[in-house]
Amino acid sequence: MQMAKVRGTVVGTQKLPSMSGVKLLLLQLIDENGELLPKYEVAADPVGAGFGEWVLVNRGSAARQEENHQNRPLDAMVVAIIDTVTVDNRRLYGNE
Amino acid sequence: MQMAKVRGTVVGTQKLPSMSGVKLLLLQLIDENGELLPKYEVAADPVGAGFGEWVLVNRGSAARQEENHQNRPLDAMVVAIIDTVTVDNRRLYGNE
Amino acid sequence: MQMAKVRGTVVGTQKLPSMSGVKLLLLQLIDENGELLPKYEVAADPVGAGFGEWVLVNRGSAARQEENHQNRPLDAMVVAIIDTVTVDNRRLYGNE
Amino acid sequence: MQMAKVRGTVVGTQKLPSMSGVKLLLLQLIDENGELLPKYEVAADPVGAGFGEWVLVNRGSAARQEENHQNRPLDAMVVAIIDTVTVDNRRLYGNE
Amino acid sequence: MQMAKVRGTVVGTQKLPSMSGVKLLLLQLIDENGELLPKYEVAADPVGAGFGEWVLVNRGSAARQEENHQNRPLDAMVVAIIDTVTVDNRRLYGNE
Repeated sequence: MQMAKVRGTVVGTQKLPSMSGVKLLLLQLIDENGELLPKYEVAADPVGAGFGEWVLVNRGSAARQEENHQNRPLDAMVVAIIDTVTVDNRRLYGNE
Repeated sequence: MQMAKVRGTVVGTQKLPSMSGVKLLLLQLIDENGELLPKYEVAADPVGAGFGEWVLVNRGSAARQEENHQNRPLDAMVVAIIDTVTVDNRRLYGNE
Repeated sequence: MQMAKVRGTVVGTQKLPSMSGVKLLLLQLIDENGELLPKYEVAADPVGAGFGEWVLVNRGSAARQEENHQNRPLDAMVVAIIDTVTVDNRRLYGNE
Repeated sequence: MQMAKVRGTVVGTQKLPSMSGVKLLLLQLIDENGELLPKYEVAADPVGAGFGEWVLVNRGSAARQEENHQNRPLDAMVVAIIDTVTVDNRRLYGNE
Repeated sequence: MQMAKVRGTVVGTQKLPSMSGVKLLLLQLIDENGELLPKYEVAADPVGAGFGEWVLVNRGSAARQEENHQNRPLDAMVVAIIDTVTVDNRRLYGNE
């Protein structure tokens, strides 16, 4: 998984029926030093993350390993809202 | 998923039988600031996107998560036409 | 899928039994302007492409979505020989 | 698989139920000369690696090829703690 | 698949039981001109390649398309030892 920050939302009304009811977040990826990378994912969010929060995002077939996603054409999903990231015994990020 | 702009079409008549009847679009990827990237995907489009529109494209096995695609050798598919992209409470894109 | 030009062949006699009878082409990837990229794939070719032709190549599990490939350890396959590529209503490539 | 060094941990309490009980390590990838790369993975660790150790990490659906991971939305997993890496008959790394 | 040169081995004793008996090679990837790239894969080798040889390596779920690999957490596998690579009717590599 990669770490990412919730930056925004993507909305589309003309879509595959299997995309109905899926909330899509625009996530900007974060590097191992906590800096924003020039990379993003538009991911389904079944967890309920808020703007500015750090999340863990998976990619590939893992995005369909969720009861409600089995037959949806998803390739990225938020799996958790990050509370803390610790690197070399130093707190890199804390969601307080 | 990634955001992409419909730039063109790719046509081939000598192909696997399982590729018959699949409309293939040439999509140029878009970054999180709305700029075109030097990357593209040739993707199946079951949604019916038009030239110049922004779409969401998936990749990998997700491209076969569509009734009509189950046994086709696809690795990229348009899943939605984008109406709006909002980043940091600012409208990045609107299809009006 | 990506666009690629047939550059050559790769031959190996010591291989997994499941690789027997698979013709492997060396494909150089092409960008959205029709230029060769410094990237390649060695892909199975069940279509019968010739040297110098442009093809569409898939990657990942899509390479096994072909009756004769089901249990072969392939991760890239030619799915079509490209006839035409049209970008912004301009002919980028024509196989005539 | 890629080689990686255990740098830290990622903790989240708001997550998918299927992520419960999964220990997540922040792994920094290592190149073929043993140098740290500016790339990382947040991976499940069913092996029990310690800080500073070198591990092998897989990615994609391989991360669910473990009895306890079958239905978890994981796309990266530690599969082994590395004892030795030998390159060109030279010891690149030894965990002694 | 990608072309790669066998550079070394990776050994680990603390690992998932499903990794037992898998020989892991460190492969350095080769570009379409035959030059070594600053990229590698640690891959299972059921073919028996020797140091310095060129091999074809697959990635992703294709690495488990081998009878003995079905339930192993592998994402890269040697599928053949390369005998010859021909590019533009010129011999790029020959294993003689």
